[in-house]
Amino acid sequence: MTTGNELIQRFEQFASPQLAESWDNPGLQLGNPDRPIKRLMTTLDVRLEVVHEAIKQNVDFIFAHHPVMFHPAKNLDTRVPQNEMYAQLLSHEITVYAAHTNLDTANGGMNDWLAAKLRLTNLKPLVEAGVDPVSGQPVGMGRIGTLNGSMTTKEFARYCMRIFNVNGLRWLAAPTDLDKPIHRVAVLGGAGQDFWQVAVDKGADAYVTGDVTYHFAHDMVANHLMVIDPGHHIEAICEPQLAKLFNQWKQENNWDFTIVQNQLNTDPFNFMVNNEGKN
Amino acid sequence: MTTGNELIQRFEQFASPQLAESWDNPGLQLGNPDRPIKRLMTTLDVRLEVVHEAIKQNVDFIFAHHPVMFHPAKNLDTRVPQNEMYAQLLSHEITVYAAHTNLDTANGGMNDWLAAKLRLTNLKPLVEAGVDPVSGQPVGMGRIGTLNGSMTTKEFARYCMRIFNVNGLRWLAAPTDLDKPIHRVAVLGGAGQDFWQVAVDKGADAYVTGDVTYHFAHDMVANHLMVIDPGHHIEAICEPQLAKLFNQWKQENNWDFTIVQNQLNTDPFNFMVNNEGKN
Amino acid sequence: MTTGNELIQRFEQFASPQLAESWDNPGLQLGNPDRPIKRLMTTLDVRLEVVHEAIKQNVDFIFAHHPVMFHPAKNLDTRVPQNEMYAQLLSHEITVYAAHTNLDTANGGMNDWLAAKLRLTNLKPLVEAGVDPVSGQPVGMGRIGTLNGSMTTKEFARYCMRIFNVNGLRWLAAPTDLDKPIHRVAVLGGAGQDFWQVAVDKGADAYVTGDVTYHFAHDMVANHLMVIDPGHHIEAICEPQLAKLFNQWKQENNWDFTIVQNQLNTDPFNFMVNNEGKN
Amino acid sequence: MTTGNELIQRFEQFASPQLAESWDNPGLQLGNPDRPIKRLMTTLDVRLEVVHEAIKQNVDFIFAHHPVMFHPAKNLDTRVPQNEMYAQLLSHEITVYAAHTNLDTANGGMNDWLAAKLRLTNLKPLVEAGVDPVSGQPVGMGRIGTLNGSMTTKEFARYCMRIFNVNGLRWLAAPTDLDKPIHRVAVLGGAGQDFWQVAVDKGADAYVTGDVTYHFAHDMVANHLMVIDPGHHIEAICEPQLAKLFNQWKQENNWDFTIVQNQLNTDPFNFMVNNEGKN
Amino acid sequence: MTTGNELIQRFEQFASPQLAESWDNPGLQLGNPDRPIKRLMTTLDVRLEVVHEAIKQNVDFIFAHHPVMFHPAKNLDTRVPQNEMYAQLLSHEITVYAAHTNLDTANGGMNDWLAAKLRLTNLKPLVEAGVDPVSGQPVGMGRIGTLNGSMTTKEFARYCMRIFNVNGLRWLAAPTDLDKPIHRVAVLGGAGQDFWQVAVDKGADAYVTGDVTYHFAHDMVANHLMVIDPGHHIEAICEPQLAKLFNQWKQENNWDFTIVQNQLNTDPFNFMVNNEGKN
Amino acid sequence: MTTGNELIQRFEQFASPQLAESWDNPGLQLGNPDRPIKRLMTTLDVRLEVVHEAIKQNVDFIFAHHPVMFHPAKNLDTRVPQNEMYAQLLSHEITVYAAHTNLDTANGGMNDWLAAKLRLTNLKPLVEAGVDPVSGQPVGMGRIGTLNGSMTTKEFARYCMRIFNVNGLRWLAAPTDLDKPIHRVAVLGGAGQDFWQVAVDKGADAYVTGDVTYHFAHDMVANHLMVIDPGHHIEAICEPQLAKLFNQWKQENNWDFTIVQNQLNTDPFNFMVNNEGKN
Repeated sequence: MTTGNELIQRFEQFASPQLAESWDNPGLQLGNPDRPIKRLMTTLDVRLEVVHEAIKQNVDFIFAHHPVMFHPAKNLDTRVPQNEMYAQLLSHEITVYAAHTNLDTANGGMNDWLAAKLRLTNLKPLVEAGVDPVSGQPVGMGRIGTLNGSMTTKEFARYCMRIFNVNGLRWLAAPTDLDKPIHRVAVLGGAGQDFWQVAVDKGADAYVTGDVTYHFAHDMVANHLMVIDPGHHIEAICEPQLAKLFNQWKQENNWDFTIVQNQLNTDPFNFMVNNEGKN
Repeated sequence: MTTGNELIQRFEQFASPQLAESWDNPGLQLGNPDRPIKRLMTTLDVRLEVVHEAIKQNVDFIFAHHPVMFHPAKNLDTRVPQNEMYAQLLSHEITVYAAHTNLDTANGGMNDWLAAKLRLTNLKPLVEAGVDPVSGQPVGMGRIGTLNGSMTTKEFARYCMRIFNVNGLRWLAAPTDLDKPIHRVAVLGGAGQDFWQVAVDKGADAYVTGDVTYHFAHDMVANHLMVIDPGHHIEAICEPQLAKLFNQWKQENNWDFTIVQNQLNTDPFNFMVNNEGKN
Repeated sequence: MTTGNELIQRFEQFASPQLAESWDNPGLQLGNPDRPIKRLMTTLDVRLEVVHEAIKQNVDFIFAHHPVMFHPAKNLDTRVPQNEMYAQLLSHEITVYAAHTNLDTANGGMNDWLAAKLRLTNLKPLVEAGVDPVSGQPVGMGRIGTLNGSMTTKEFARYCMRIFNVNGLRWLAAPTDLDKPIHRVAVLGGAGQDFWQVAVDKGADAYVTGDVTYHFAHDMVANHLMVIDPGHHIEAICEPQLAKLFNQWKQENNWDFTIVQNQLNTDPFNFMVNNEGKN
Repeated sequence: MTTGNELIQRFEQFASPQLAESWDNPGLQLGNPDRPIKRLMTTLDVRLEVVHEAIKQNVDFIFAHHPVMFHPAKNLDTRVPQNEMYAQLLSHEITVYAAHTNLDTANGGMNDWLAAKLRLTNLKPLVEAGVDPVSGQPVGMGRIGTLNGSMTTKEFARYCMRIFNVNGLRWLAAPTDLDKPIHRVAVLGGAGQDFWQVAVDKGADAYVTGDVTYHFAHDMVANHLMVIDPGHHIEAICEPQLAKLFNQWKQENNWDFTIVQNQLNTDPFNFMVNNEGKN
Repeated sequence: MTTGNELIQRFEQFASPQLAESWDNPGLQLGNPDRPIKRLMTTLDVRLEVVHEAIKQNVDFIFAHHPVMFHPAKNLDTRVPQNEMYAQLLSHEITVYAAHTNLDTANGGMNDWLAAKLRLTNLKPLVEAGVDPVSGQPVGMGRIGTLNGSMTTKEFARYCMRIFNVNGLRWLAAPTDLDKPIHRVAVLGGAGQDFWQVAVDKGADAYVTGDVTYHFAHDMVANHLMVIDPGHHIEAICEPQLAKLFNQWKQENNWDFTIVQNQLNTDPFNFMVNNEGKN
Repeated sequence: MTTGNELIQRFEQFASPQLAESWDNPGLQLGNPDRPIKRLMTTLDVRLEVVHEAIKQNVDFIFAHHPVMFHPAKNLDTRVPQNEMYAQLLSHEITVYAAHTNLDTANGGMNDWLAAKLRLTNLKPLVEAGVDPVSGQPVGMGRIGTLNGSMTTKEFARYCMRIFNVNGLRWLAAPTDLDKPIHRVAVLGGAGQDFWQVAVDKGADAYVTGDVTYHFAHDMVANHLMVIDPGHHIEAICEPQLAKLFNQWKQENNWDFTIVQNQLNTDPFNFMVNNEGKN
């Protein structure tokens, strides 16, 4: 029987926890990785509906991108939905592990998956972050690369909506920049607006990242950066990609557990527009 | 001739700077309020295109909601667009004053304008914030009140898009809450997600606020709060409302300057959707 | 059926959470106080063996003195004994509530029980701590009072061992102070060495408190304070005393649940001596 | 004539002040090390009775383990016993030097003396702490090693009481661990409870350290660590051991001063038990 | 016999320690105020030469303005002159008490003495600092008042040099302000440059304070404030003034000790110029 | 045409910004270094009168020692003289660059110029500060070296006044040290009193530095250090020395702009004495 620890050990050679940001809380979230795994689920988010589905499917190990215990629990008052979810997981003996900013940074990880989806080439890390402690290769947060050819801002917005398969997105460009060709593109899954200056300094025409807020939006537009905010949910690309990785390792190591992917859309945002937004 | 100081003195009886949050930087931003005002412009934001328009129109006093010097200037390197904007304002001897969270909190101010737009009645402050130092009345951030009748979540989203006259918005609701009637509504102009628990505790069915981010979105939905994120730009309601106030005071005090409103849309966000967003 | 909330509401009139120290974490620890109580257990500590006993006895509400979630949980790795205990409590739907420094400070609470055990009279708070928010009475941490007559240091040490029914204790006195009569006594349940100067300033001959460390011990002895360190476990007096209080409220309110007391000794310390210690 | 400086210089090759913890204050405490030494006293603690004895014996240099000026003096109000002691030392021109955590960490220092007393073999540092700046050897806080054979918990407690020659001690073990054989032992002189997890991780069956407090005690017992708390006074082993070192260096360097050892027991704690403690 | 405590108690009715700034360390510095006073010395500073003089004159109580233990003593290494001075004071059983910013602020204290020397009238506190806890009167740091008539900047500099009887001073004025008449004057003994803006806001033409540094000097001059920096030593006015106060209280209370004043000039600065400085 | 950037790039090879202290704010202060330079002015300080002179002379680049934006600007209220000066500079399109503690530390920079003026030989850094990132040479703050022969304290004070061409200065020496010969001298331009202990430890007889305050003065005198406080303005030596450097680089690089030096004395201090100060 394969235990959670064996999977974790193999995974951390691929995406060492030392790659995570100092504010992050990846790794084992809940449960006991000494237990054998029978059925593993990959998921972007651990939300109550995902947990219900996991219980229904007899999943005993959840491998997630977003750390379910991002904030320490001051108490376990189960009237609070988050705590009730912990109680459900504990009572059903489900183990939860999260790979967050270490998966973002790892070579071959989240941001490479997103950049590949965008068909960017000549990829480099957007923000250098030292050296991978396992392979000794340079690593970094986000990616920057080039499109084959170029698009107008609106074409690029439509392209992002299509390839990431989202129902809506927000985009930014100075009115005078609408016809500027987009060729060099930076991408950082999650909430990356703090790094917009790096994207500008490295010559990006457009920056794809989530959770953009109003005053940052003004700063980016004033500095002639086009921005696509498709939300965090484009990171759901990790559900099939992690499953693919695990299946490969399963073969290499003769693991004996079943691998399933979360099928629920956990994006909390819905969009509504007049006339396709402004412009 | 009326000086900037006379206007400021009158305004601060209406919305005392002591009402501002501790992290805020409202008040005189730039220029010399001892100078007489000939032409005043009200605006939500001070952006480069707004400044160009002000110069073209011979405006010498800009009255804004968002503080243009929100971050102290470490240098005045004019290659940075923000600094270049300061240089333009200084060279054209334009004075800039901002009323930010004090205008949000003031009785009869921003959040009352937004609540009136929503046609909420039985208004109370959402987050109590003590007592107005001028009038001695209780004051607070945001407002909570009731709609005349109720709507479904989607009807409410469409209603918000129409009354605030925005091109797009994002909205949140748990799938199981889609048919929950919306009757009690909280509103907090700007970025108010930190206060969602207060909205829940006070019985809000829906919360209207901007800059909602992914993980907060999950927490709000899990706690059965419907959320409308129409962005900050609904606060552009201050452009006519401040102009109205100033015209009233102009009559009362025999002021002699001209009052104009910014006509440019400074909302940096554009929207793009498939099939009207999810759901 | 009586819910946890009804008990908590009544208790907090007696010992308001506002009386707790700022570093403390009393109140609901775990579970759901909306559930009805069938069987309540009072206990000083929530340790794994206590939880096993509670499960065996079908207890569904544990009322403790020491907060079981004193440190927030960064994860719920159940290989860690503390987390495994939370999982047991959650799986068995046991609710846990703790009254810690608010119980210590409350009039009629922990320190009054300890002072009564010592038969101190003319009781005053040792460290003033403002006013009870419910009754408006002055409150404080610890108590100071007088014995009827006086004892030598060694007699007093033997007296404490007997009345608190502990198997061992540590005591301190300068060699030149051995024959000093002990008449005025301060007591502070838990770890109170930080307040020794107050005890000296208020004329205490002896100070009864736990967790005394080496360098504090030297300071207290140098300042001619006799000290008894009987450990924290003397606070187990709360097990019968809380049960007594709850039985009284049960009658007054027609509550219908059963009240039991923890019977396990949770004192982690054992003692071993030569010749009854030094002297 | 040998000055204090010569002794200090030789000592700091053995136990460099750079080995001390950042919170510590070892080194010269009081007086003038340029003066020649005639009579040196080694002592664990500098307490008023030790100072009186030193004055009586014409000692002019006190070499101590615990820093007498651990807290900076905000004033020199001589009504405070500690300050009166400084005044006595200054008036009698006694120099005081302390070697605290640097002596604990030094190879061949305090924790090696304690480990030798316990007859531990295969010694390693408990907590690695870098490299000795003089010798280049690895150094660390505490020691871990093995007993020749094994003992039960109670046998080990009696063994510690005997070899450290203390009048009493406190010990901890989970009831279910009483018959667990003790073979691998960690020791850290002074107050070492913060490092219990390291002792567990390195396979210690028992941990010998002082100043153990109630809640740490619970954590250690829950993690199946047996603990002996013999207090700080076992460090009085430094009185003969330092004297032995100094006599050796005296011969090597033709020093001409007399070396005496403190004979007073400065342990502030006394013990009292019923039936040899619990169990 | 009068003890130090009796004097201190009387003095603190005049200048309560609660009036001191939070960064200050006034009050008992060293020694034992329970001892009777035979010979008291008033002094601005406690320096080694002052201590030698005090010893020669059999002084047993020094009443100073500047706290001799302004910085806590981390050790008492007597090779350091400051520590050697403490040793001398302790060995000769001299008690030292300091009244620093509480004396500055007290009504009838340091800044009133300085303002009287300047013959300022219509005195007000420069920086309001609440209410005296003994008398209930408003108090403040520094004073502001008016000269009878006015002087040029240079005349005022010469006037200050003469009345404060200093050998030299530094003064500041913008070249264009040299002929501005000086009429309204602020004074703050010690180092008061942090409060220059208050002096400007309250209409001061000149500000008399010590320890003025280069960049503050530029700011003050740019804001058209004339500044006199006569150093701290003008505060030596406290030597006769405190003696006068103590003699008055001696009569009222039948005290029996002798009062002497320090006669040594403790100003560390000497001046050298070409042509009477610039201008 | 030579741009500001070319000059800055060459300068930073000489005095890298990485040499600056962490609290410092050197580098570009204001304006746009992409613009070509036609007329550059070197100056110690940027004060309003210097700016007026620069405008009169058509200067478009000011190279200063003291950073004009030492404190970030929270607003640009032009009633404040400092802000009005920024507005003047921006309106006249003058670029301002400052080299502060990096120029002080650079080999061949400020402190070498001052030491050369003092004719010190055998120069070493006073406070070691690592290694120059460009040349790899060791660097440090301040310099220490020896005079050819020796002087009395008063002779040395007169010597400093003459060679630095100041109108006045302050000097310090213990009365018993007046005849001590001055041979070894430390110098640190600006405000260097924090480093007096280093000067003592390295055997300095005298220390030349500015902004000496009263209590530091006492400490230095008590430790037998003679001190000369000639103010900051001796750093005006940078006006000709920077001009010399720039002229040399102009030749080497075929730059085409004119270099002028500030001619205004920006020292804010004037001196006034009786009898040449004390002594």
